[in-house]
Amino acid sequence: MEEQIEHKGILWGTNKRVAQYHIDRFEEFIAQSPERIKQLCTNDDGRLKHIARAEHFDKNFIDIIYKTAHAARKMGKLPGNSFLSSLFPYKAAMNFFKQPSSRTLLSFYRAEGILGMDRININDITTSSQYKGESDSDSLRTTSSYFDVVVARHPSINFDLLGVYVAEMCSRDFRYINAGSGPGEHPTQGLLDVYTISESFGGNLDHKVIAFVGDCLRGRTIHSLAKIMSIYEGTEIYFVAPEELQIDPETERYVKEKGVVIHKETGSLKDIAPLTDIVYMTRIQNEHGGDGEYNPKFIFDQRILDSMREDAIEMHPLPKREEIAPELDISKDPRIMHWREMRNGMWTRVAILSYLFGVDEQIREVSDRMDAAIKK
Amino acid sequence: MEEQIEHKGILWGTNKRVAQYHIDRFEEFIAQSPERIKQLCTNDDGRLKHIARAEHFDKNFIDIIYKTAHAARKMGKLPGNSFLSSLFPYKAAMNFFKQPSSRTLLSFYRAEGILGMDRININDITTSSQYKGESDSDSLRTTSSYFDVVVARHPSINFDLLGVYVAEMCSRDFRYINAGSGPGEHPTQGLLDVYTISESFGGNLDHKVIAFVGDCLRGRTIHSLAKIMSIYEGTEIYFVAPEELQIDPETERYVKEKGVVIHKETGSLKDIAPLTDIVYMTRIQNEHGGDGEYNPKFIFDQRILDSMREDAIEMHPLPKREEIAPELDISKDPRIMHWREMRNGMWTRVAILSYLFGVDEQIREVSDRMDAAIKK
Amino acid sequence: MEEQIEHKGILWGTNKRVAQYHIDRFEEFIAQSPERIKQLCTNDDGRLKHIARAEHFDKNFIDIIYKTAHAARKMGKLPGNSFLSSLFPYKAAMNFFKQPSSRTLLSFYRAEGILGMDRININDITTSSQYKGESDSDSLRTTSSYFDVVVARHPSINFDLLGVYVAEMCSRDFRYINAGSGPGEHPTQGLLDVYTISESFGGNLDHKVIAFVGDCLRGRTIHSLAKIMSIYEGTEIYFVAPEELQIDPETERYVKEKGVVIHKETGSLKDIAPLTDIVYMTRIQNEHGGDGEYNPKFIFDQRILDSMREDAIEMHPLPKREEIAPELDISKDPRIMHWREMRNGMWTRVAILSYLFGVDEQIREVSDRMDAAIKK
Repeated sequence: MEEQIEHKGILWGTNKRVAQYHIDRFEEFIAQSPERIKQLCTNDDGRLKHIARAEHFDKNFIDIIYKTAHAARKMGKLPGNSFLSSLFPYKAAMNFFKQPSSRTLLSFYRAEGILGMDRININDITTSSQYKGESDSDSLRTTSSYFDVVVARHPSINFDLLGVYVAEMCSRDFRYINAGSGPGEHPTQGLLDVYTISESFGGNLDHKVIAFVGDCLRGRTIHSLAKIMSIYEGTEIYFVAPEELQIDPETERYVKEKGVVIHKETGSLKDIAPLTDIVYMTRIQNEHGGDGEYNPKFIFDQRILDSMREDAIEMHPLPKREEIAPELDISKDPRIMHWREMRNGMWTRVAILSYLFGVDEQIREVSDRMDAAIKK
Repeated sequence: MEEQIEHKGILWGTNKRVAQYHIDRFEEFIAQSPERIKQLCTNDDGRLKHIARAEHFDKNFIDIIYKTAHAARKMGKLPGNSFLSSLFPYKAAMNFFKQPSSRTLLSFYRAEGILGMDRININDITTSSQYKGESDSDSLRTTSSYFDVVVARHPSINFDLLGVYVAEMCSRDFRYINAGSGPGEHPTQGLLDVYTISESFGGNLDHKVIAFVGDCLRGRTIHSLAKIMSIYEGTEIYFVAPEELQIDPETERYVKEKGVVIHKETGSLKDIAPLTDIVYMTRIQNEHGGDGEYNPKFIFDQRILDSMREDAIEMHPLPKREEIAPELDISKDPRIMHWREMRNGMWTRVAILSYLFGVDEQIREVSDRMDAAIKK
Repeated sequence: MEEQIEHKGILWGTNKRVAQYHIDRFEEFIAQSPERIKQLCTNDDGRLKHIARAEHFDKNFIDIIYKTAHAARKMGKLPGNSFLSSLFPYKAAMNFFKQPSSRTLLSFYRAEGILGMDRININDITTSSQYKGESDSDSLRTTSSYFDVVVARHPSINFDLLGVYVAEMCSRDFRYINAGSGPGEHPTQGLLDVYTISESFGGNLDHKVIAFVGDCLRGRTIHSLAKIMSIYEGTEIYFVAPEELQIDPETERYVKEKGVVIHKETGSLKDIAPLTDIVYMTRIQNEHGGDGEYNPKFIFDQRILDSMREDAIEMHPLPKREEIAPELDISKDPRIMHWREMRNGMWTRVAILSYLFGVDEQIREVSDRMDAAIKK
C-alpha cells in the first residue's frame, strides 16, 4: 500500500500532486497574521465561531462561559428537569481524538449528552484497514457532512487551524474545537481552569499569583492557562521547573507582552507556595524519554499545603503520578482541588457548546427564572 | 486456542460437527432461486423486510425512499422540531462493520440518531480476546435479542444473506440491512446515488446516460447503481475502465437482460463525458496490489467538466484519490456533486430505516402538513 | 516507559511509594468481615448501594428485581410509550469492560438506553498510548466525576470490591456494579438466571433441583446462581463435571452451609437429567489451555431433552460450543431456553439500574396502572 504524504504531522493523501496542492493552500492559510486568523474564527457579530487558540478569548467571552457553566450546573441538579437536553434536536458532534485522552474526551462526551446532542467518538476517521489513503482534510470535510461540530485532539501543533481551514471550504456551517494540538495549546482546559479559579475566588480573577509547577515546557494546559490569565489585571506567575523544562519562549513572550510579571524558579516549591493564590501542579511528561529524576523536588504534600494561605488553592489537570502525595487524595482540606476540578470540566464544555450554537443566553435566562421561582 | 472453521469467508465456530451442520443448512438456503430469496426478504404486504440486494428494488420502493428522504430532510431543517426523534421509542440498531468504513457507518449512525433509535457500532461481535470461538451466525442471533435491526458490512459476498438466514431462525422480528458484502453489492449506496440523481434531474430517472469510470470490476457501488438504473426506461451505460477492471460478467448480464444499452470503453474519458448525464467516478481499489498506473487516463478535471453538458453532473462515492483533480474540491460549479452527495446518504438511510419500521408514510404526511401550515 | 505496579491483578500506578500507600489501604479494606462489607454495600434504608456479590442478595431484593423486570418488559412492548426513557435525565453509566464480553455488555448498554441514561463503553479508561501510568483506582475515581454508575468486568477476582473502595473516597454519590470479576462472581447473570427460572416456574423458586453441567470450577455464572438458589427452601444441586473441573471449595462450602443438598457427578448427564427441574449447561473454558476432550460426555442433545420432565428446562449462559447439539438451536421445544434467556438479561438489568436509582417502585406502579387502564 502506498504511504501517506505527511507534512507537519498532518496526512495529505498518497498522491503527490494532490497533496502538494493542499499543502500549499494550507501553508498560505496558517501564514496569515494572528489578527486575520482570529477574524476567521469569529462571526460577524463578534462571537467566536471556532475554539482554536486561547489568545482569541477576551474577558467578555470568559465571563459568558463562566456564567453559563454555573447556570447549567445548577439546572443539572434539579430533579426531573430535562431543559438542557432539549436544546439541540438533530445537532451532532464528532469527538476526533487521534491522540487519546480520558478526561477531555469523557467530559466533552458527557457535555454533549447533557445537551441532547448526537455524537460519536472516533480515533481515526478513516478506520479502514483496507484503505488508508484519505487525507486528514478530506476526512474532516467528510465529517462536516454529518456533524455540526468537530472536537479534535491531535499530536500536530498545526491541527488547531486545520479544522478552521476545512470549515472555510465547506458549504454547511461547521464548527471546530481544538481539544489539544500537540505541545501547543489546550484552550478548553484553560477555560475549565479559569472556571475553577473563579469559583474559588468569588469570581475575581484580577491580581492572582500562580505557580505553574512541573513540566512548563511541554505542558499545554500551562500554556493555555497562562495566556488566559494574562488578560487580567496584575497577574503574577512563577514557573517552577527544572532548567530543561522551563517555560517555552513563545508563551513567555506572549504573557510578558501582556504585562504579566514572571519569575522562573528551579529551586524549592516550599519557598514559593506561601506567596501564591494558586499552585498549579503538572506531571513531568517523561513518557517519551527522560528519567523522571527531577520529580522529587516538586512534590505537593501536606507540608507544602500547610505552608499555603488559608484561601489559596492547589490544582492539577490530571493524570498525576508522584507529584501529589497520596495522602492528599483522601484529604478533606477544601484547598485541594485536583479531584473536584474534573466535574467543572464537564459544565465548562456544556457552556462552550451552547455558546457555539447560540443558546447560552437562553440557559442563563431559564436558570435565573428557575431561581426566582424557587425563591418565591 | 482452536481455530474457527471458515467457509466462504464466514466463521462457523470451532467444532467440526456443529459447523458442518450449519454450513449445510446455509448452503441450502443460498442455493434457492432468486425469486424465492426475494420472497424471503419481503413481507406478506409486499414491502421489503430486509435490504439485501439491489435486485429486490422496484420503481415503487425507490419512489418511496426518495420521497421519504426528501420529506425527512426538510423536517430536519425546521428549528426546534423533534418529530423524527420521537418515532421509535426503544427501537435499536446494531451497526456491525467487520470491514471498516467511514461514510456508510457514519451516515447510518447519524440516521439512527435522527430517528431517536438506540444503537451501537461493533466491528467484532465477540470482542473477547479470551474467547473467539463463537460463529458469525450465533453472534448475529445474539444481536437479535437486543436489537431490532442489524446493519452489516462484511468482506464475504455471501453476507448479504447471512442476516436473512439468521432472521428466519429467530422468534423476534429482526431486520437486516446489507451495507456492503465483499465485492458484491452495496444496495443502500445505490439508493443514495439514485436520490442524488433524482434531486439533480427533477425526479426524472428515465433515459439517463451514465458513464461509470474507474474500477468497474470491484466497485460494488457501481454494481448496485447499475442494477437499480436498469429498472428505468432507456438507461444507457458506458463502463469506462482499463481492460482488466472492466465490468464483471454477472452485472453485465443482469443489466443487459433488463434492456440497458451498454458500452465498454477503455479509451479516453474526454470523448465520452459530453455524451452523458452522469459521470460516476470511482477509485481504483489497488490497495490489495496493483500499481495504480492506469489512473492518469481517467482523471476528472476542469477540462472534462468543461466538456460536459450544462445539466449533467459528476458523482463519486468517495473516498477519492487522484481521480478527481484537487482544484475541483473548491469549485463552486453546481455540477460537482462529490461532496454534496454525502449528506444525501444520511437522509436516504433515515428513509430506509423508517420504511423498514413502517413509519415512512407518517413522515411524508407530517411533512406535507408542515408545508401547508408554513404556506398559510 | 515505566511499568505499572500490579497487585492481585489490579494496576496501582508507576510510583512505588504511591502504589504501596493505596495497596495497603485496599488490603485493609478487603480484609474486613463479610458482614462489614455487605454493610458498606448497603444504604441506611437497607437497600443495596452497589451490586458486588451474590451473597448480598436476599429474597426480598430478588423479588423486587423480578417484579420490576417483568413490569418494565411489559411497558417496553406498548407502542408509542416512552415512560421508561424519561426516568433519568442526566444520569450516566460507564461500562468498563477490561475483559471483553458480548452478552453482558450489550444487555447493560441496551438497558441503560431503554432508561434514557447517557452511557459509554470503555475497555481501558486511560486509553492513552502515550500515558499508561494511571492506576485503576485513579481511573475509576475519574469516572465518578462524569458518571453515576460504573458497570465493570475485570479479570481480577478483587475487582468486585475496587469500585466500592473508590466510591468510599468520592464526594459524589457513585454506584458500582460487578459485571464479572475474574473467576469469582457474576452476580447480575445470577439475577437474570433466577428471572428465567421464575418465569418458567410461575414465580416459585423453592424445592428446585438443578444440574450445573460443564465447567463448575471456573464458571462464574455457576458460582453466582448456586449462591442465589441457596437462599430458597429445599434447593438440590448436581454439579456434573469432570473431576478436575468440579465445583470450587468456596462455593461448595457456602451453599452447604445454607442447607443445600449437593451431589458431585462425573458420570453421564443422561442419568441425571430426568431428576432435574433445570439443566444448566456451560462451556468448558479451555481457551487458556486444556484440550477439550472432556466435552463429549456432557453434550445436551435431543436424547437428553427427551429424558427430561415436561415442565423442566434447559439453560445456557452462552457463548456455547459443542455442548449444545446444533439441532436444538432450531427446535421449537419450549423447554429449550438458551436463546430466549438473553432478552431476559436486558430487562433484568433495566430492573437493577432502576432499583439502584430508586425508581423501581414507580415502574411497577405505572405498569399496574397501565394494566388496569387496558383492562377497563
